[in-house]
Order: sequence, then structure tokens, then C-alpha cells
Amino acid sequence: MRRVAIVGVGMTKFGEEWTRGYRDMLIEAGSRALADCNLHGEEIDALYVGTMAPGSLVGQEHVGALVADFMGLTPIPATRVEAACASGGVALRTGYLAVASGAHDCVVVGGVEKMTDTPGEEVASALGGAGDQEWELFMGATFPAIYALMARRHMFEYGTTEEQMASVAVKNHANAAKNRYAHFQNEITLETVMNSKYIASPLKLFDCSPITDGAAAVVLMPLEKAKRYTSQPIEIVASAQASDALALHSRHCESELHSTKVAAKKAFEQAGISPSDVDVAEVHDCFTIAEIMAIEDIGFFKKGEGGKASQEGRTALGGEIAINTSGGLKGCGHPVGATGVKQAVEVVWQLRGQAEGRQVEGAEIGLTHNVGGSGATAVVHIMKKA
Amino acid sequence: MRRVAIVGVGMTKFGEEWTRGYRDMLIEAGSRALADCNLHGEEIDALYVGTMAPGSLVGQEHVGALVADFMGLTPIPATRVEAACASGGVALRTGYLAVASGAHDCVVVGGVEKMTDTPGEEVASALGGAGDQEWELFMGATFPAIYALMARRHMFEYGTTEEQMASVAVKNHANAAKNRYAHFQNEITLETVMNSKYIASPLKLFDCSPITDGAAAVVLMPLEKAKRYTSQPIEIVASAQASDALALHSRHCESELHSTKVAAKKAFEQAGISPSDVDVAEVHDCFTIAEIMAIEDIGFFKKGEGGKASQEGRTALGGEIAINTSGGLKGCGHPVGATGVKQAVEVVWQLRGQAEGRQVEGAEIGLTHNVGGSGATAVVHIMKKA
Repeated sequence: MRRVAIVGVGMTKFGEEWTRGYRDMLIEAGSRALADCNLHGEEIDALYVGTMAPGSLVGQEHVGALVADFMGLTPIPATRVEAACASGGVALRTGYLAVASGAHDCVVVGGVEKMTDTPGEEVASALGGAGDQEWELFMGATFPAIYALMARRHMFEYGTTEEQMASVAVKNHANAAKNRYAHFQNEITLETVMNSKYIASPLKLFDCSPITDGAAAVVLMPLEKAKRYTSQPIEIVASAQASDALALHSRHCESELHSTKVAAKKAFEQAGISPSDVDVAEVHDCFTIAEIMAIEDIGFFKKGEGGKASQEGRTALGGEIAINTSGGLKGCGHPVGATGVKQAVEVVWQLRGQAEGRQVEGAEIGLTHNVGGSGATAVVHIMKKA
Repeated sequence: MRRVAIVGVGMTKFGEEWTRGYRDMLIEAGSRALADCNLHGEEIDALYVGTMAPGSLVGQEHVGALVADFMGLTPIPATRVEAACASGGVALRTGYLAVASGAHDCVVVGGVEKMTDTPGEEVASALGGAGDQEWELFMGATFPAIYALMARRHMFEYGTTEEQMASVAVKNHANAAKNRYAHFQNEITLETVMNSKYIASPLKLFDCSPITDGAAAVVLMPLEKAKRYTSQPIEIVASAQASDALALHSRHCESELHSTKVAAKKAFEQAGISPSDVDVAEVHDCFTIAEIMAIEDIGFFKKGEGGKASQEGRTALGGEIAINTSGGLKGCGHPVGATGVKQAVEVVWQLRGQAEGRQVEGAEIGLTHNVGGSGATAVVHIMKKA
């Protein structure tokens, strides 16, 4: 397999985008990624798009072709990939394999979701399709409820507190306030989180990531070609994906994501590094408890110590390891299919030294971690300055 | 890139499957494919699933993980791929690249759709998402209407007749009647087609493929490993995919599919053969006019002569080139995401000499051609006895 690098990145401002449609956003993100590496459309060999539920949300399937068409890239192969909230990360991995295989020399990977045009209950129903429709959603188990069960178990087993979870939201809002692409541009206090209403106890409104519109894109090339397009190619040194039971009730353990553990272990083996080598990581914090589990399951902290580590500021900017400098899903927003690609955009900016007020000094190695549903899919990428 | 072979195949009986759900069908097809090559689940490295609209049709997304879970294959990477009616073919290509790249040594590719549990107008709306939702479906242009426009243009330019189109349906029902997996098990006469009611003039009921439930699966391996699992590996010697404008009104020509021409040309170049070398082909006959355009655009017949060739029996069993021996989408049925994988299953059976009463004697080279929407995606595979 060939070595693969990211040469260009771009994203839209995440948020409630009333004036722009599904197709507009991905084209904006894609155009920015192309401009970022001075790439012309005719040099692109293939396109992969991660998006979760455009059929339910905006009535549109066949999104690969849609994007190729509206970006003027036909007749290149254009493929949509879906793995619920991990759609973006899995699209990145699929594009990575297409370049690594030698099949394509220049691949664009995009991620997009348009969520705020759809009534809330329809969005909840569409998102419920990420879990087990027949055995969870049909019985009323929406995603906040499923993650609330995991939070309760984590509290029971490790003594994790609601304040510790709240500290994740406070940290991610603080990071988002330094990111002009983030959905939320404001800091919040621990009191704001603790006083917000329960959505599914113990998870409160500010423990939950928002409904967001947005898109992100990256350009991939073989490493040896990358230097012609950028002075700062970022190599993808590991790409690993794993699956688990779709429904929470079929898992062996509710206080960890086995898929994250499997994917992270494989990724560290591929990269030949250990968790302590990572300088900056974007992890999947769809709920605050999800970030706590992620930083444990990836191996940044011992199992059960994620809540305490968060509360002590060890994951903040300037801490031991900077987690979710973009603001994460909580602060930057969670346009489902875009999230996994946005994570890569943020890590590339960090490794290039372009992360503005949230820059991690001297960042050399970054990691992205994207989860589908309640953990039935996890995908981990490790990136390094080439 | 490594050489890749299909070692195992399986499918469900296509039809209106009231007693089986979405997940049951793909598991049945997958189990048959595994049994076909004596493969154990723990030997599988990755899974790709082609499915178009399970979010709209059965409320379920995240289908890669669903299948991995219910087939007992976790924690392997499991990815859903979508390109409308070409979802199966594009999943096959994505799985092919994963093996060719060296990333995975044993990949299962499945395709599935459960359509008959959903009211007709909802199915039509979901399928409309394969075209341009904003500029076609919203204006009332359903798929029969779009293909009717193409048929009218083909009739205008080349003198193609309604009888010629009808002859495609008659031939495909005759083939389906010899295929115990086909949705329709009966032959029909030209009069039946010609006397059926217009759906969108000039297309009549019997010019249209049906709404069908079904699933299909294939097992892929590097060629050098394949012989350990089957005495008859079938090599994939070409895999090519192309895109085109999503909406018909944005195309340069309405009487051909440019995406088919691009993908077929690339595939023949990769395989180092010409159309006349192909013994058996499964092409995308969602409507009878689609088969006529396909056999021209792939290069089996000169442009404009597809209708005449069909009427003269040159595409029937025993003719110059056997087209759609499975019965095609018209006779075998069209469970959207399953179709592209089913085409590969049929060609493998033909090349192995296992196609029972519809066997093409001495078939050495086969081709599959799968189209998304009205042609915004086309994917072509060429297969050969290894």
C-alpha cells in the first residue's frame, strides 16, 4: 500500500444555516479544500462523500453523483458512504484506501449534513436510524436515552459525576469560542451546564451536542505527489475501523465502546506509536459522557479516570493532551456526516500550525476518533507531519 | 494492485417477501455466499453493504454495522455504500479496491433492499431521491417519467419502436422463468406487454421493473488465495465507475448514458478486451429502454441498433450475446441495493457453468453494468474464469 497524505482542507462555518442548502454547503467546503492546495477540478480522480440521512432529512439520495455534478467534476467516480455519525470518518478511510491501493492519485473526501430544515421530531427519528430501529428506536430509546444509560453505568462503576461531565462541555465551549468555524462562539460556565434541564437523566441540555448544518472536505494524494501541492503535507499514518453490536443491550459492557478500543489499538499498531505520543486529538463527544469514554477507550487515560482528568483540566488547551480543540461536537457542532471529516480538517490545521487562538504548540502527531450511533462503528485515524 | 477473485456467491429468492425483514434477507444471502466457499465468519476481514434507501423505506441507517452484528462478524470494519440503484455495483467496486489495495484479505460484499413493506407512494418518493430531488422529483418527474423522456428521444433519433422495447421484456421474462431465484417465474407474450397500460408514455406497465425485496452477497479474496476456497475462482479483471449530471435536463444527450460509455470504455481498457469478447452480460434494465441504451452504450451493438437487435433475438439465450440471463431487473426483480451484487452472482454462476436451464455454453467472460438513477452513476465490472 502507498503512503497517503492530506494536502488540502476546507469547511463551512458550522451552525444553523438558513440561507444555504445541502448542496451549497458541500460545494463551499470542497472549493475551499481545492483552493487550499491550488488544485484544479480536472486533476481529481474520485470523490467520496460521507452523509448519514439525506434521504430522510432533505429527500435526496445519490449524493456522490450530486456533488460531482454540482462541483463540475463529472464523469469521475463519486461514491456516498454511510455509517451513521461515523459517515465522515468512514468516507475518509474509504478514500484513503482508494489512494493507498493505487486505484486513484487524487481523491476528495467530503462530509455534509443539513439538519435544521427538518422538524425536530423528524430529525430525532432519522438519527434513531443510527441505532437499532426495531429494538431501540421503536421502543422509544432515542440517542440521549441510550447515552444516558451509558453515563449511569459509568457513574456506577467509576464514580464519575455530573460535574465531571459538565466540565467537558465547559472546556469544549471554551475551545469553540476560539474557532471561527464553530457553531457556538461563546464560553459557558459549569453552573450553566449544571442548571440546564435534564434531557435524559443524568444528561442535561448542555451535555448534548446540537443539531447543526455544515460540511467539510479534504484532498488526499500519494505522499510522493503531495509536496507538489503543499509545503506541509500531513500523512495519514493509520486508518482503522471496527464494528460492534448495533443495540446497546447486545453489548458486553455499557461503560466503554469496544469498537473504539479495537480501532484505536489497530491504529496505534499501524502507526507504531502509543497514546502518549499524541499531541492533539478530536474525539467523538456527541454527549459529554462520550468524550470521557473516548479518552479512556483510546488509551489517553486509564479506564474510569476520564471524568476526573477532564475536571482537572488535563484535556484542555495547555493540558497533557489537547482534546477537541475545534470545540468538538458539543461546541463546534455536529452536522452528522460532516463531523468525521471536520475532525481531520482541525487536526491538519493543528499540525500545520494554523489553528489560530487554539493552536497546540509544537503539535507533531494528531488523532481523530469518529463514532457511529452508540458505538456500533468507530473509526480512528492518526496523522503526522510528513 | 493485487488481482482479486470472487470465491463465493449467494442470494435470496427475489420477490414480495412478506415473511422476512430487511436484516433476515441479507443474512440469508450472506450465509449462502459463505457456505458456497466453505468460509467461516472469523476469516472475514471487512464487509461492504450496498443499499439505497433503508432510512426512508424501513427507518434504518447504519446498515454496515447492522449486518456485521446480525451475522456475528463484529468487530470487523463494516461500511454501507450508496449510489442509488447502483449501490450494489459500487459496493462491489469498493470491496474490490479494499482487497486490491492489500488492506483486507477476505471481504464480503452484500446488497439488499426491502421495498414491499412500504406504501407505493412512499417507495416512489424514496426512489425519486436517486434523481435530482429539487429539480426533478419536486416538479413531479418520477423515474418512469424520466426514462419515458429518454425513450421518446431514442424513438425520435433512431426509429426505435414500442414493439422493440416490448421484446426486451418478453426476453427477460423468458430468462427469469428459467431462474428459480427470480421474482417473476412466468413467460409473457409481446401482446401482454403491448396491451398493458401506459405508466408514462411510451413506457407501459410491462416495460417497467417491479418493486422487489431481496439480497445478494459475494466473497472476495486475492486471486492467489482464492484457490484454497474454490476450484472455480472468477477473477474481476476490470472495475470502473463514472458519474454524470444528476438531472436529465443537465445532460448533453438524452438517448444515451454518458456514464455508461465512460465506465465501459475504462473497463474494456483495464481488461484488455473488446465488447465482442464478452459471452454473457447483466445490464441495468430498470426499464426496457434502459437495456436498449445499455447494450449500445457498452458497445455490444452500434448506437441506434439496440432495439432492432433485441427484436431479432440477438440478445436472447443462444443469440450473439446473452443479455440478462437472470431475467434482469425486469424479470428477476429490482431490490435496488441488491441488484448490482445479484448481477455479479449471476455472472459467476454463468462462468462456473452453474446457471441451470439458462446456461450460456462455454461462457468465459462476463460483464455487469449497474446504473444509479437516470444515469448519474454507472459502474461496470468484467469477470473471467481464473
